[in-house]
Amino acid sequence: MRQNNEVKFDCPLPLNDYPMILLAHGGGGKLMHELIRNIFAAAFDNPMLETTLDSAVLNAENDRPVFTTDSYVVHPLFFPGGDIGMLAVNGTINDLAMCGARPRYISAGFIIEEGFSTESLWKIARSMSRAARQSMVDIVTGDTKVVDRGRGHGVFINTAGIGFVEHGFSIKPASIRAGDVIIVNGDLGRHGIAIMAAREGLSFESQVESDCAPLAETVLTLLDAGAEIHCMRDLTRGGLASALVEIAQICGMKFSLDELLIPVREDIRGACEILGLDPIYVANEGRLVLFAPEKDEKRILEIMRSDLDWHDSRVIGRVTDQIAGVVTMRSSIGSERIVDMLSGEQLPRIC
Amino acid sequence: MRQNNEVKFDCPLPLNDYPMILLAHGGGGKLMHELIRNIFAAAFDNPMLETTLDSAVLNAENDRPVFTTDSYVVHPLFFPGGDIGMLAVNGTINDLAMCGARPRYISAGFIIEEGFSTESLWKIARSMSRAARQSMVDIVTGDTKVVDRGRGHGVFINTAGIGFVEHGFSIKPASIRAGDVIIVNGDLGRHGIAIMAAREGLSFESQVESDCAPLAETVLTLLDAGAEIHCMRDLTRGGLASALVEIAQICGMKFSLDELLIPVREDIRGACEILGLDPIYVANEGRLVLFAPEKDEKRILEIMRSDLDWHDSRVIGRVTDQIAGVVTMRSSIGSERIVDMLSGEQLPRIC
Repeated sequence: MRQNNEVKFDCPLPLNDYPMILLAHGGGGKLMHELIRNIFAAAFDNPMLETTLDSAVLNAENDRPVFTTDSYVVHPLFFPGGDIGMLAVNGTINDLAMCGARPRYISAGFIIEEGFSTESLWKIARSMSRAARQSMVDIVTGDTKVVDRGRGHGVFINTAGIGFVEHGFSIKPASIRAGDVIIVNGDLGRHGIAIMAAREGLSFESQVESDCAPLAETVLTLLDAGAEIHCMRDLTRGGLASALVEIAQICGMKFSLDELLIPVREDIRGACEILGLDPIYVANEGRLVLFAPEKDEKRILEIMRSDLDWHDSRVIGRVTDQIAGVVTMRSSIGSERIVDMLSGEQLPRIC
Repeated sequence: MRQNNEVKFDCPLPLNDYPMILLAHGGGGKLMHELIRNIFAAAFDNPMLETTLDSAVLNAENDRPVFTTDSYVVHPLFFPGGDIGMLAVNGTINDLAMCGARPRYISAGFIIEEGFSTESLWKIARSMSRAARQSMVDIVTGDTKVVDRGRGHGVFINTAGIGFVEHGFSIKPASIRAGDVIIVNGDLGRHGIAIMAAREGLSFESQVESDCAPLAETVLTLLDAGAEIHCMRDLTRGGLASALVEIAQICGMKFSLDELLIPVREDIRGACEILGLDPIYVANEGRLVLFAPEKDEKRILEIMRSDLDWHDSRVIGRVTDQIAGVVTMRSSIGSERIVDMLSGEQLPRIC
């Protein structure tokens, strides 16, 4: 159901008059009002985005509300396959989807460095608008601050999100059961490698594009179909390994993975080898891991694979009944090793 | 109903081991988990703050939800009368209160500069916790990012907030009527002067403390008492003047103020004169302007003045029936002038 949601009109703020963001654009006065009206309100246009109030009054629904927030500091701001705006909207949509909630409302807080290109800000706002429309969420409230040159880095964006849980499942680590299958929705490592390549000016044979994408639609299709999902997690900072170790430690069970089953594209595997990285620690922005009982495996994979971006969905391991709180991985030569959480920092400012 | 809500225990993160924030504290790995558990979860402790999930599932209520966000970039981080943490919680509480909503849930997103003092971060988190308890809101979800040294400035905080409207009033500029009285809840200009003094190392005869305070409790008392409030606005960036001009332009009416009635402390007035500022443009963090019909004036002032911080509440002007969208002020010598919105930047990073 991807639609062409392009915001086609030009930036209403005269870019010739204001080629750069000034400190005064964060000052609460005329310039800030112009900026909000001509960039953010223009890009996010929706009936609940009442720019004359600091808050948005939401349409109440009867389901359980879910609330999340993330700040985005990715560098560079624009990268193959996405930009900080797309990431800021999709990342928060995905956090809500991981609770099994239907994303509905998003707030956007901008911390802009004095001197930042106004045109870039417009591109980012437009990209946020496009991502919001694609997932049928509304950006309903926002805030703009400007910090002095050298005290920020282009733009940082915070989004908070509200979604609603429409089902009866309890999707969390404690719901995981022995025998559950562990499923990923496709190849790993593209976002991290795309950012690293863009930042360091590396070039690989093929251009690597971030996998940044919204996860809510297919997750909700799974839930609507009654698939019994025990736990989900998006595989961002720290990658698959860190997410699984964290979940294993919370639920206290053992997850046994098979390295040969973990999908990694050949070019990504090659880039990881050159850079000395293990793809299971590399960040993704459109990938998730999902725990479900074996009985639902076939049905779940069928639905997952019907999403074009998820065609490579597959089982990569199982939950065993050992009470251990660890993740193990059987390698291609048959040896088994303990998978640890990412220690330290693999790549700062990946999201 | 102010209680002693001090978070008394020490920071659970060993400050000797981690005197400074490292880039790895934002890396999604072990250090980030330690930081979240030992600083934020420790400070914000509440049953809905489920640190094992990225979102918070909220207790649903039947009233209309209200959603807001603000980023805080105030500099310096600690100032007489408050700090960035207190400001980040109270500021968002106040935005919700200005809609007549009861603040309930807050999210907290931190963008920390590599090398920032961990002890300062703990003090800020503790201060947020104290502010949240004072207003009976819960900080239910959060996010931590670290940016490289020289790409941030200590710490920036975004808070988003959810509140619930429990009354039937429509509190917004369009509800303002000719004949309404314009009321402020006390003396103006203290936050701006406190920040300026702290930043520039100015000292005045008496120490000027920020007026930073939560506004929700007394606002809700007014609404519970059935006071007919037409519109409210907190007087932050841009001060009283910018808020009133913005509201006048939206509702298209004329507001006539009397300069002699506007409460400004003598030391603040003196500081403003030295600095060449007009106190009606100086930022506040515990002050609001309120529009109400004359028939409710007495009752409203009585309730407002029963709040110790609001004892100097008073009528400063009136809405006249001219359709003009302007604010005028009669000066001490009887002349009338047009009040304009703040143009440009009076003091960057005031909140």
